Amino acid sequence: MLYIVATPIGNLGDITYRAVETLKKVDLIACEDTRTSGVLLKHYDIEKPLLSYHSHSGVAKVDKIMKYLQEGKTVALISDAGTP
Amino acid sequence: MLYIVATPIGNLGDITYRAVETLKKVDLIACEDTRTSGVLLKHYDIEKPLLSYHSHSGVAKVDKIMKYLQEGKTVALISDAGTP
Repeated sequence: MLYIVATPIGNLGDITYRAVETLKKVDLIACEDTRTSGVLLKHYDIEKPLLSYHSHSGVAKVDKIMKYLQEGKTVALISDAGTP
Repeated sequence: MLYIVATPIGNLGDITYRAVETLKKVDLIACEDTRTSGVLLKHYDIEKPLLSYHSHSGVAKVDKIMKYLQEGKTVALISDAGTP
């Protein structure tokens, strides 16, 4: 299962309870910049494996995410801010 | 201070942390239907004085809200769902 999760634009409080709940339950979080998303995830005590994934990512990254999904694992896709 | 607060459309988890924080700190919550908003507020353990305020409300209701604001109190305006 792949979740597309919207993250705050500027104020860390601007994220929904369901978004945080989703990030807390997935097996992997794919994010644009692990340092940027790290600030948000740390704020909400979310410790999950992170995978950087952005517009310049190669096919190997897509394969990695697809492998997770095919194994029945859950992945959340987030961007630095807003909705991916 | 008057806060315009967006509330969930369908899923109670679709409200931001900042919105809940705001509803928890204000002196009065003006809502369309106190029973409808009561479900949301109870879910988040928010106990505040409620004032029904909707498109058919008379000038007296506006006066009441204005009085609160002029006294330096804080008011949150919410609708049954979404952004007022």
